[in-house]
This record gives sequence, structure tokens and C-alpha cells, in this order.
Amino acid sequence: MKNTFGQNISVTIYGESHGEAIGVVLDGFAPGISVEEEFIQAQLTLRRPSGRISTARQEPDPFQIVSGVFEGKTTGTPICIMIPNTQTRSKDYSATRPLARPGHADYTAYCKYHGFEDFRGGGHFSGRITAGLVAGGAIALSALRKKNILIGTHILSCGGIEDRNFRNLENDLQELNQKTFAVLDEEKAEQMQEKIRQTAEQKDSIGGILETAVCHLPEGIGEPWFDTIEGVLSHALFSIPAVKGVQFGNAFSLVNGTGSNYNDAFRMENGKIITETNHNAGINGGITNGMPIIFQCAVKPTPSIYQEQNTVNFFEKENAVLEIKGRHDPAIIHRARVVVDSVTALVFCDILAGRFGTDWLA
Amino acid sequence: MKNTFGQNISVTIYGESHGEAIGVVLDGFAPGISVEEEFIQAQLTLRRPSGRISTARQEPDPFQIVSGVFEGKTTGTPICIMIPNTQTRSKDYSATRPLARPGHADYTAYCKYHGFEDFRGGGHFSGRITAGLVAGGAIALSALRKKNILIGTHILSCGGIEDRNFRNLENDLQELNQKTFAVLDEEKAEQMQEKIRQTAEQKDSIGGILETAVCHLPEGIGEPWFDTIEGVLSHALFSIPAVKGVQFGNAFSLVNGTGSNYNDAFRMENGKIITETNHNAGINGGITNGMPIIFQCAVKPTPSIYQEQNTVNFFEKENAVLEIKGRHDPAIIHRARVVVDSVTALVFCDILAGRFGTDWLA
Amino acid sequence: MKNTFGQNISVTIYGESHGEAIGVVLDGFAPGISVEEEFIQAQLTLRRPSGRISTARQEPDPFQIVSGVFEGKTTGTPICIMIPNTQTRSKDYSATRPLARPGHADYTAYCKYHGFEDFRGGGHFSGRITAGLVAGGAIALSALRKKNILIGTHILSCGGIEDRNFRNLENDLQELNQKTFAVLDEEKAEQMQEKIRQTAEQKDSIGGILETAVCHLPEGIGEPWFDTIEGVLSHALFSIPAVKGVQFGNAFSLVNGTGSNYNDAFRMENGKIITETNHNAGINGGITNGMPIIFQCAVKPTPSIYQEQNTVNFFEKENAVLEIKGRHDPAIIHRARVVVDSVTALVFCDILAGRFGTDWLA
Amino acid sequence: MKNTFGQNISVTIYGESHGEAIGVVLDGFAPGISVEEEFIQAQLTLRRPSGRISTARQEPDPFQIVSGVFEGKTTGTPICIMIPNTQTRSKDYSATRPLARPGHADYTAYCKYHGFEDFRGGGHFSGRITAGLVAGGAIALSALRKKNILIGTHILSCGGIEDRNFRNLENDLQELNQKTFAVLDEEKAEQMQEKIRQTAEQKDSIGGILETAVCHLPEGIGEPWFDTIEGVLSHALFSIPAVKGVQFGNAFSLVNGTGSNYNDAFRMENGKIITETNHNAGINGGITNGMPIIFQCAVKPTPSIYQEQNTVNFFEKENAVLEIKGRHDPAIIHRARVVVDSVTALVFCDILAGRFGTDWLA
Repeated sequence: MKNTFGQNISVTIYGESHGEAIGVVLDGFAPGISVEEEFIQAQLTLRRPSGRISTARQEPDPFQIVSGVFEGKTTGTPICIMIPNTQTRSKDYSATRPLARPGHADYTAYCKYHGFEDFRGGGHFSGRITAGLVAGGAIALSALRKKNILIGTHILSCGGIEDRNFRNLENDLQELNQKTFAVLDEEKAEQMQEKIRQTAEQKDSIGGILETAVCHLPEGIGEPWFDTIEGVLSHALFSIPAVKGVQFGNAFSLVNGTGSNYNDAFRMENGKIITETNHNAGINGGITNGMPIIFQCAVKPTPSIYQEQNTVNFFEKENAVLEIKGRHDPAIIHRARVVVDSVTALVFCDILAGRFGTDWLA
Repeated sequence: MKNTFGQNISVTIYGESHGEAIGVVLDGFAPGISVEEEFIQAQLTLRRPSGRISTARQEPDPFQIVSGVFEGKTTGTPICIMIPNTQTRSKDYSATRPLARPGHADYTAYCKYHGFEDFRGGGHFSGRITAGLVAGGAIALSALRKKNILIGTHILSCGGIEDRNFRNLENDLQELNQKTFAVLDEEKAEQMQEKIRQTAEQKDSIGGILETAVCHLPEGIGEPWFDTIEGVLSHALFSIPAVKGVQFGNAFSLVNGTGSNYNDAFRMENGKIITETNHNAGINGGITNGMPIIFQCAVKPTPSIYQEQNTVNFFEKENAVLEIKGRHDPAIIHRARVVVDSVTALVFCDILAGRFGTDWLA
Repeated sequence: MKNTFGQNISVTIYGESHGEAIGVVLDGFAPGISVEEEFIQAQLTLRRPSGRISTARQEPDPFQIVSGVFEGKTTGTPICIMIPNTQTRSKDYSATRPLARPGHADYTAYCKYHGFEDFRGGGHFSGRITAGLVAGGAIALSALRKKNILIGTHILSCGGIEDRNFRNLENDLQELNQKTFAVLDEEKAEQMQEKIRQTAEQKDSIGGILETAVCHLPEGIGEPWFDTIEGVLSHALFSIPAVKGVQFGNAFSLVNGTGSNYNDAFRMENGKIITETNHNAGINGGITNGMPIIFQCAVKPTPSIYQEQNTVNFFEKENAVLEIKGRHDPAIIHRARVVVDSVTALVFCDILAGRFGTDWLA
Repeated sequence: MKNTFGQNISVTIYGESHGEAIGVVLDGFAPGISVEEEFIQAQLTLRRPSGRISTARQEPDPFQIVSGVFEGKTTGTPICIMIPNTQTRSKDYSATRPLARPGHADYTAYCKYHGFEDFRGGGHFSGRITAGLVAGGAIALSALRKKNILIGTHILSCGGIEDRNFRNLENDLQELNQKTFAVLDEEKAEQMQEKIRQTAEQKDSIGGILETAVCHLPEGIGEPWFDTIEGVLSHALFSIPAVKGVQFGNAFSLVNGTGSNYNDAFRMENGKIITETNHNAGINGGITNGMPIIFQCAVKPTPSIYQEQNTVNFFEKENAVLEIKGRHDPAIIHRARVVVDSVTALVFCDILAGRFGTDWLA
């Protein structure tokens, strides 16, 4: 399996940045789930470049539900969503065909596909392919919300500026899901945006850390080996271009501490078993314990920058200098956030359908 | 799929800490690979608790190759390796049956398996289950070494003490693979071991960060979606008990920098395409670029500590206090290291067999 | 996995008979395979109803390659082919919505999808969905032909009329692949077509047996357990609507004989190991032996007939009488033949890519 | 995936005929299923050769549950069952090492495994490997029986002698499940056994047709594409050595009839929807309709016969004559029957767990 993920609910993606269309096939969703086209559109808009801090390519991302939805509800058979590519300027790219853009997949695609890859605009490696995940993820998010399972992501840090931590989680998630630039502290949001603008002026780019929470999952889902919650989630998350690290509960900082600090003591609260702290991020032995799942994704700075860069011409096997033209974002972290939410939702729908049966989500 | 991982070479694990035996079934290895039983034994010994800084349970881990090996070589059919459980003291555990050990899977196992789980010694969640991965991983490591693909791991940090970074990678890996306590800088190794001893005296435990390198992989393996190198590796690595974070190329630290610093410039060197830096950790767009794969795993402090801890009795749904008895490690990071190597080797064998065919590894 | 088949080359189908479009996503094909659009069109035409012996619905099956093909060759990334539904008369069906057509999936779809299924024209159960398999199969057939692997199917029997057996296999296959009505003996072809016409006049339908041969496969592919050639092929073949039996080498007739007759003696011929007979159909222990693979599919009579039939109204849970209107075939066996070829080609591409690596087919 | 089958409940087999042991790992069974060791033993005994009509190799098949069962019930984690090989006379086989036994997998194994295969007694291709399926299948059969789902198989024909058809299905299944030689009509059972004895005297072997029924499955399980009930079942059934054909509801005979005869009219009976006939074998569009699933397996004559046979020496690539020594059955159809039941049970457990969730079978 390559471009397909998930066992009980599976996601298959297709398309290239400058081909006819990109899209997704979702299979295994219960019949009878409401498909809210406006929400899909709103999510696609969050992913879309917009405003000064993003690329000038303004694709409206109109989408078409080709199959699997009948009279506004899922049928239970594969849902194909197609997003046509309308605004493609292929000539931007052809001149630099054999020059490997540093940090991009041009060279590795060439190694893998022997030159047959559709190289225009990154082809199948383009961040644009995530639009299919976002469209599909919107259906997953809706279905989970009906089950009271909430997912939300904020920019925890960007260019050295740090957002506040989650506090009242449910409120925070609801707030985040109404924001275009997902930062809890408005002042920090301003600072980050200013930082992104400055970076753009320096013809440079910037990355950061996204933090995601998932609330109200039932306890007892996940597997000890190999399909741990951590493992399945990270597998999917690393597909998001630019994600280079995934940690649960701030692990890289906390592991140098002691067990007596790291362990989450259990306690009864209103007849429910909870933990006093949540360093294990809602997961023990790969399985949910009823506490929120909290994880962070490291999002590398966008590799497309407007400065001259040293590289190679991989046709000629010789050194070269590259100056990237075209339309590019100085940061994609604020857009990646909706992709993280989408992927997370799809993963949990899959896990829940496997555990409780195909009709559970309906 | 739960306890099975891998598409072309698959690994299935079974067993409980205090049952008859634990073990592994490996399927898909090319016929004709030499199986070096001494190397398997040596790897199992590295995983085994030993000396003052580890638990007093001294299981010699004798293993039995039950199938799939004939006249010292793989047959191409499933390799079942069984490791009997000999030294089990089950009565240590039964008294505290319904008391959820903080940081352990007792409570989540109860949620998932409704009380039918074999709870003795952590059952199927026990770190002991990784012995099967180590035995299987030894075959994978041998096979890769024949192809000049090298894998090695060091303890990058433990209790705040940091090892030096990789320098001459091949030398470092060879050196590491002869060490019991895998730290490059001998002085730091001493300090870490001292730190672990001190922590044990305080009835506490400690974690740290493992850093792994994989050299000489062919370029062009991996998938853009969803089976990125990062995704498949992390999926498997998160199965290792205590791993709570995986990052490639120090991502969480570097993402707050700029693209101009993060991007790895390409350059020709002796007719080969290399990158000047390796922040992308040998992977662009999910696919290898020929540079070493470098990743780090955050290993949480062992949850078993000898201090009193607050918890709940999940049978009675009431608060409780727990004092763990028995034999436990104040740190497992030095033992986890061989598990990381093993899992990494198994994952790359799988990916390589998928890309180049079932006979490639022979 | 539901609507996805294959491990190394996977096929995902989507669409409903009267929705926007139907289609297929093919993933895992080597980069650089020529995609012959004319051949795809020709294969789709063979599947299409035509002439007096088929339904009056004359959909031209124009197809659109949405992704995965660049400058006439596969890129190595997912190939999405979409076939719009243009000529849909949905009102034909709605009147009889809750009346289960005998032999159709109306009732089982209702049980499975709880009434949310797109019931129009059979929805996702429609034979029309096989057009996606045929389009994808055309690429597979082309790729195999380049490797000298030939596939062909004839109508072995229909309405009691029997075609001659395969004789000179390569000639027979080439001949068959140029025929619209795939019968080796022209006289028998006339008789079968006459039989189908007579059956249509009686408002009835008819089935038969398809026999398929695959030549020049390398020996040594397939698995002893569970992915035997027989098992994987039959798994896929039973997806073709109306296929209710699969036998290799005329098994149901021959098994009552003795081992001394059934066994295929080996013999050297021109330095190559062959068998004197081929009752095992080119497969021993699930693995190819170099002889042609020969199998037969039992294709049940089309369930749509114009006679009154007893049935139930599954909304009201009461008996009912149904008279099917609309456009239907008195036989589909002559159209199913190209679907069998397509599915067979896709299955072998998958098996070969797994065995010899992803680039082998290029 | 090779030696692993199933998505939600998976079965992994390992072992060679003359190695240390053979066995099975079952993963995904709900926790809390009673494991009846006596029933497992009884099923293994049915598979075992016994009496005059079977091979003289009298292995008692003692089995050991190595993991996954605790206090008599499944834990929900992998169940490993091991069956040691005790009575192996390897020297019987080594003399004829490079002589391909006709109808056996010696030559195809050599092609696939390049001579590294454990050739002794058929190695991993031996019918003995099915003992693992039978042991695992016993747990599946027990679990299904608790849900009132019954499975049973009779020898429909053997050596030209035909058993009567199923009549009162539940009675017939109960009766069959108490018989050693599973034929409904006792007189026909005698005739078949006599036929087998005669065949043995002629140093020959014989095959036949097994017919299986599955009762009381819920309606609405299975998939339209590709995981049809027919497809998934046949995939698994073709793994049983000697099975060369699978048909549902006598398809190969009936397809030459007309749709008006083949279609199964629906009708209300006691408030339940049933069909008047059951030619579709309880399956429409790949999905159960509530009627019994009925299918037949063609079991080829045992390839081991005591007559001289022409073959090749595949080391020397030259013609040869082979006379098989050792212990062999003149028929295995009466033993294969319990394997068919076992495989069928495992497949339905997997399908049901996928549809209704992991706990459904408990």
C-alpha cells in the first residue's frame, strides 16, 4: 500500500499539482453520515494560501463529490472527491527541471521514478495534494463531532514566538476551530504573523511546532503492538509535507526528568478514572486511557525560498545555482494546521470503526 | 492488523511476560540468508537486564528457531523464533492486580480486554516482548550488513548528560555496535551510568534520547504518501514501550530557524550527489536521497519506581496507594537501544524487499 | 480493505451507476509504462452493451485520465481514471425501490447500508462499475504483453453450446483478442448468439462458463499459504458480478478420477521443464510451474429478466410481485470476458511487482 | 502478506513437515472466548491420518497453547499454538531430493526458493501445516457456535459415488459434526471407503468434492467489491492443498440454465425475508442475504501414489523415473473436510469482527 492508508476506513489519494485534478477516495465510512459541503469548503479555505503571508496562487479549490454521497448522506460505498486544477502555470517550472530544489523532493522523485515523474510544481509531492486529505478529513471531523470527539490544533511556536499552552481544553478547541490563524493568544498571533512577513521580506521562510488535542475518545482503543495510537497517528502525520517530528506530550523535553515526575498518577473524579497530569498524552501502552491525546508536530520551514541556493543539475551531474521563481509561501504552518486536524480525524475514524464496527460512526 | 507489521517482510509477535513463551514469526525474508545464531544471542544479551543498573531478573533468553531456517540459512518460509519464559515469579504481581501502575498499561489493558488480559508482569505489554523483535531484528541486521547497510544507535542524552554527536559515521557505528552501553564519549558513558545508579538509590527512574543512524541505503526508496520513510519507521518505533517521540534530524529544535538555514544544499562529491548539511535526515518527500537517515527517539523514564504512588483500584473504582515491588530497572534506555536497531532493520528490510523484490536481500 | 485490492499494485474503485461518475485509482505501477489510450477505449467498447444481444443503454464510456500519466507514460504515482455517467434515466428505478429484484443485491445492500445506499440502477453494485476495472486492466494487459505474458478468455459454454477447447494456445489467444464475441469455433459463436436472441425473446436470460489462459508467466511466483495463485486470482474474480464459481484446470470434473491420471508428469523439452498434461493448470502448491494458467469462471444468468417474479417489499416486509422494466441484457457473459481478462492482468501485475520489485514491469 | 490471512482477525502459520514444530498465531479474537482444549484435540484428530484408508504416519498431534489464553479464556492478544513434530523420518525423502514429484510443489518450491527450501516431507507445503489451521479453527468454530452460527461439511462425491444433498440443514450439520467420515448417507459412506481401499490396493489415489454449509449468519455482511463473501472465502480455501475449484451453489452446473430458473424468488416466512430456492448460495452482490451459505470445493486426488511416474531431476535438468516411498494417503478428502470447516470459521470470524467490532464474538 502506498497512497492508501487505513484498514477499516481507508483513504486513497491521487493527483499532481499541475495535472487535471487531485482528489481522494474514502472507503469504509458508515452509511448515513451527513456530508456538510459548506464545512468541507470552509476547511479547504483554511488550507488555501491567502493574504500577504501566503503564496499568491489563489486557487478557489472547488470540489466535486463524485460518488458515495446520496441525498446529503454517505452511502457506505467509496466517496470520491475531486478537486480540479484550474490555475496552473506550468511554464514557471520547466526551465529548472533538472535543478534539485534543496529541501524538496525533486531529486528523490527522479531517483524513484527515473525521470517519468510529473515534475511540474512538485507533481504528486506538492502540498496541494493535501487538499484531498482536508476534504476527506472534513467528513471525518463532522462524524467525530457528532460523537462528541473534538479535535483542534494551534501553532505552539513559530519563529521563536510561543503560544500559550492549552488551558480549558474544550473552550480552546472551539475557539481554535473558528480562527483562521490558529493561535490561542491573540498577541502572539500578531507577533507570529509579523515574523512571517519579515521573513518573507528577507526572501526566506520559517517553520514551527503545531500542537494538537483530541478530546473525549473512548478509553481502551489502540493496540499494544504495532498499531499503537502513537504509531498509527505518526505514520499518517509524517505524510504531511514538512512534518519532520512527532512527539506525544512534550516527550523530548520531559524524558530527561525522572519517573516520579513523568508518571501520571491516577485518581477518581466524579466517578471517572482520570490522571492528575497527562505527560503520557492520554496513551498508556499504545491504548487510550480516556485523557486527551496531546501531540506536537515539528513543521520545517518551507523549502521554497527566493534566495540563490547551491544545488546540482541531476541530469548532468554537475553543480548548479538555483533561484526559485513562482509563487511560494514564507510559511505553511498556519495552513498545515487544518491538514493535521484532517489526518488526525481520519486516523481516529479508522481506529474507531475497527474497534466498534462499521456502523459505529453513523 | 495488530501484532503484525510490514507488507513484504512481515513481523508477527506473540507472548506474555509470564506465559509459556514469547516469540516472533518473520515472513518474507529471501531464501538463502545466513542465520548467525551467535549474533542473535549477542543481541538478545544486549537487550537483557544486566549488572547493577538493571533489574535483577536474569533471564538468559535462550531462543529456539522453530521453523524457516534449514542448514543455517533462511528457507524463504516463515521463521518462527520462540523464547521460553523460565524465570517467572507471578505471585509478585497478583496482589496488586486492580491497582493501575501509573505510566503502565494496566488500566488501558483492562479497558480494552475487559479483565481477560494476562496481567502478570505486564502480560503482552511487557518490555520482554521486545526480545522477539531483537531476535528477528538480528537476522535483518545481518542481511543488511551484507548489503553494506549499517545501523547503529547511541544514547544521545540521559538524565541531562549529553553524548557527543555523530562525527565519522561509519566508525561511530562500528564502535557502537561493540559497546554494551552505547555512548560514543566514554566519559559521558560513565556519568550516565553513575546518574542511573543515583536515580536507583532514590527509588526513581530516568529516561533519555536515543539517536540512530542508517548508512548506505540506496536513494529513491520510500513513498511520498503514506508510506514515507519517516511514517513507516515511526509507526514501528512507537511500538517500543517508552518511546513517546520520534524526530528526524533534530527537527523540534531546528524548525524555529529559517529555510535558508534548514535547506540542505546539494553538491557533487566524487561523482555522487550529496547534501552539504543533512537537516532533512536523508529524506526528501518521504524518499531517501542517499544521505544517512538520522533520527531520535524520546524514551520516557521507566514507569516502575519504588516510591509510593497515588492511583486507583479499577475494580472498585476508588482511590488507592501503590508501592511497586519486584524487579525493575531504573532505566531501560541502554537496553532499548538494541530494540531500536532491530526495529529499524526490520522496517528497512521490508521497504527494500518491496522496492527491489523478494530475492534482493539474499 | 473493501474497494481496494492488491498489495504492491493496488486497485481502488468508486462510483455508482447513476451518480456523477465511476472510476478507478491504480497505484504502484512502475514509472515509464506506455499508456495506450486507444487500447483502453477498445477494451471499454468490448465491455459495453452493443447490438441486439445486449441492453439498449448505449453509453459511449468516454474516459478521462485524471492523474498518474504524463506525456503518455505512467509516472509511478496513482493513476486515476474517471468515466462520467452521462446517460442515466433514474426514474426507471425509483418506483420499484423497495422491491428486491431476485438475484440482485437490492435487499442485501439495504441490509448492509440501512437504506442509505444509492439504489438507482444497482448503484455501486452495478456491472457498470467494472468499466473502471477494464480501463485499469488495459494498462495492465499492455504492460504484461511487453513482457510477453499473454492473457485471453473464451466463452467455453453458453446455453448448453460448447466451444472447442484451447489447442494452439498462443494462436488462440491472439485470435480471441481480436474478436468481439470471444468464441474460438465460429459456428458455435453463431449458435450461442442465436441462443441468446431466443432467450431474449422469451424474456429470459442465460449464463455460461468462461475459460481463461495466461501464458509465459515466470515459474516460481505465488505463495504456498495464503496468497496462492488460485486464491488471489479467485478472490479478485469473484468480485465480477455474476461469477459464482472458479475452477482451475477443469477441477470439478477431474477430481473424481485417480491420481495416476490427474498428476502431471514432468518432462524435459528443449532444455525446459514442462509437464505432459496440465490438469494442475500451471500451479503446484500455489506457485507457477511455467505451464499456462488455465481457469474457468461460472457466470450466472443475468438476474434482470422481463418476466413477472415473486419477491418482497423490504420496507413493508410483505410479499410482492415485480416486473422489471428498463434496459437489460439477456446475457452478459460475452461482455464479462473482457472484465475477466482485466482482473487477471491486474492480479498478475500485482504478484509480479511483489516478487521482482516495483520497476520490473516498466 | 504471505502466510498471514485476515484483516481484523488474522491467522499466521509457520512450520515445516520435518522441522521442530508447526503452528499458528491467531490475532484479533475478542477477549473472553472460552478455549476448549478437548474440542481442539478432537478436531486435530479428525484431520489426522487414521485407520486403513490413511497413511501409516500416526502423529498424535499434541498441541501447546503458548500465548493468548489465560485461565481458559482468550486474552485478546495473539494466540500462539504450537504442534511439535515428533515422528519424522527424514531419510525417507532425501534420496529423491531433486526428483519433482508430479502434482507436488517440489519443483515450484525449488523455483521460488532457489534450493534453500526445507524439502523434507514437503516442508512448508506439507498438508501437515493445516493442523495449525485446524487448531485455530477450533477456537473460531466454538466462538461462532456460541453465536448460533453453524458450519459443517460432507463429502458430496468421491470416486464417482455421490452422497445425498443437504435436507434438514441444521440436523445434517449436527450429524456431520459427530462423524469421523463425513457422509450423510451411511451406505454411500461405506461405498466411498471401499472405493478408497480399492484405490489404495491399485497403488493409486482418489479425490472428490466437499460441500459445506454455513447457517444463521446475519444478513448484510460482506462487500460488493473486492471482499465479497465468495472472494474472501475462496482466497482462503484455495490455500488448502489439493483444493483446485470453489463454487457457490452448484454454479458450474446451473449457469447453463436460464435466469428465470436461477433467480431465487424472495418470500416472507414467519416475518422473515427468505428465498424460495438458494442457487445464489446465500449471497447477493457479495453480501449475505440470511440464507445458508453453500459452497463446494474440488479436492484433487492425492498426488503421492506408489506407481512409477515420469518426471525430471531438476538439479540435472534431465528426465527421470520416480517411485515414491514412505507413508501416504490414498485419499485425503475425508481429512480435508475438517480443514475446510476450520478455514471457513476463521474467515467468518474475521468478517464478523470487521463488521460488528472486535468484541462481538466474545
